Amino acid sequence: MHVAIPLYDRFTALDAVGPYTVLAFAPGWTVTFVAAEPGPVTDDRGQLSIAATAGYEEVPRPDVIVVPGGIGTFEALADEALVGWIREADAHTRWTTSVCSGSLLLGAAGLLRGRRATSHWAVTGFLADTGARAVTERVVVDGKIVTAAGVSAGIDMALTLLGQAADTETAEAVQLVIEYDPDPPFDAGAIGKASDALRERAAALLR
Amino acid sequence: MHVAIPLYDRFTALDAVGPYTVLAFAPGWTVTFVAAEPGPVTDDRGQLSIAATAGYEEVPRPDVIVVPGGIGTFEALADEALVGWIREADAHTRWTTSVCSGSLLLGAAGLLRGRRATSHWAVTGFLADTGARAVTERVVVDGKIVTAAGVSAGIDMALTLLGQAADTETAEAVQLVIEYDPDPPFDAGAIGKASDALRERAAALLR
Repeated sequence: MHVAIPLYDRFTALDAVGPYTVLAFAPGWTVTFVAAEPGPVTDDRGQLSIAATAGYEEVPRPDVIVVPGGIGTFEALADEALVGWIREADAHTRWTTSVCSGSLLLGAAGLLRGRRATSHWAVTGFLADTGARAVTERVVVDGKIVTAAGVSAGIDMALTLLGQAADTETAEAVQLVIEYDPDPPFDAGAIGKASDALRERAAALLR
Repeated sequence: MHVAIPLYDRFTALDAVGPYTVLAFAPGWTVTFVAAEPGPVTDDRGQLSIAATAGYEEVPRPDVIVVPGGIGTFEALADEALVGWIREADAHTRWTTSVCSGSLLLGAAGLLRGRRATSHWAVTGFLADTGARAVTERVVVDGKIVTAAGVSAGIDMALTLLGQAADTETAEAVQLVIEYDPDPPFDAGAIGKASDALRERAAALLR
């Protein structure tokens, strides 16, 4: 199975690298980072660059795409090379997936009309504008479209995908490889449980 | 607070990028990826490269170091430039941390003697050889040394660290930013709960 992850300026690193690590450990799966042209692409903290090893035109028909989100998503919505590649790749994918605000890019490509989909809590209000039926679940599977909530939800999404695209045993083996038995030190990861003060403090970090 | 994450050939991507994303979203924190020399460093799947932006000698006194693990750790144990940098940096850090088999590198630098420490389940047997008191906990804080279990445990470690090095409110805000309210689709992330078949399947993916 060949996975392509498009990178664009100011993506969120964990959005891409969570699913990458899950899927790249699956036997027989390969992952290619793509961009407008090969070379380093810098994340939204400005402190990490991942190398795209291929241009979009070199990877026209991956089996799976994983579109990350990030502070740069809104600017990327106007990037027709990226959005066009997503649209054209989707015509042949077995699975078209996103993490975080990446679902807005699927929406910009016209792929979410009438579909159930999720996104980062800070941007779910924009998801309905794409014609999606926006929900606040962590991982949403609607046919071949699989969307994840914010950032770390990409790990849950990729394991869910692997369970369906390969089999449960493979997904469980990868989960054990990455020792994904989470134990957050605080219970602060869900917007529905956040105080107004916490929500405001988190929103400030996203500006 | 200035964090340095050393990269070496065949590190595991999520080991580095989980803590990176947590700490780089914290207000006032900056993260630098370092290596023997600046340039791209390729991970243990051979499919991702992250750019080191500084050589070791350029970042001699970071406040925090986060040492990732990976398939390449055992070869890296003999890399005196890396191990020497860890040892010398630790003399001045406020926190010295590792993820996964990265704790073996802390051990090689002589930092774990008599310390409680953890690692990836596949390599905990080697941890005692460093003089550490090896335990199977997910995150272990022993003074300024903080070690995490395998791969994804680095996210829990970084949030724990942030709660102590900054404050609870900051750590909770970052947790909400990365929407870390984990919901794994399978209950397969802990070695203590794994069947022999699952353990063997996972071990095969690490070879």
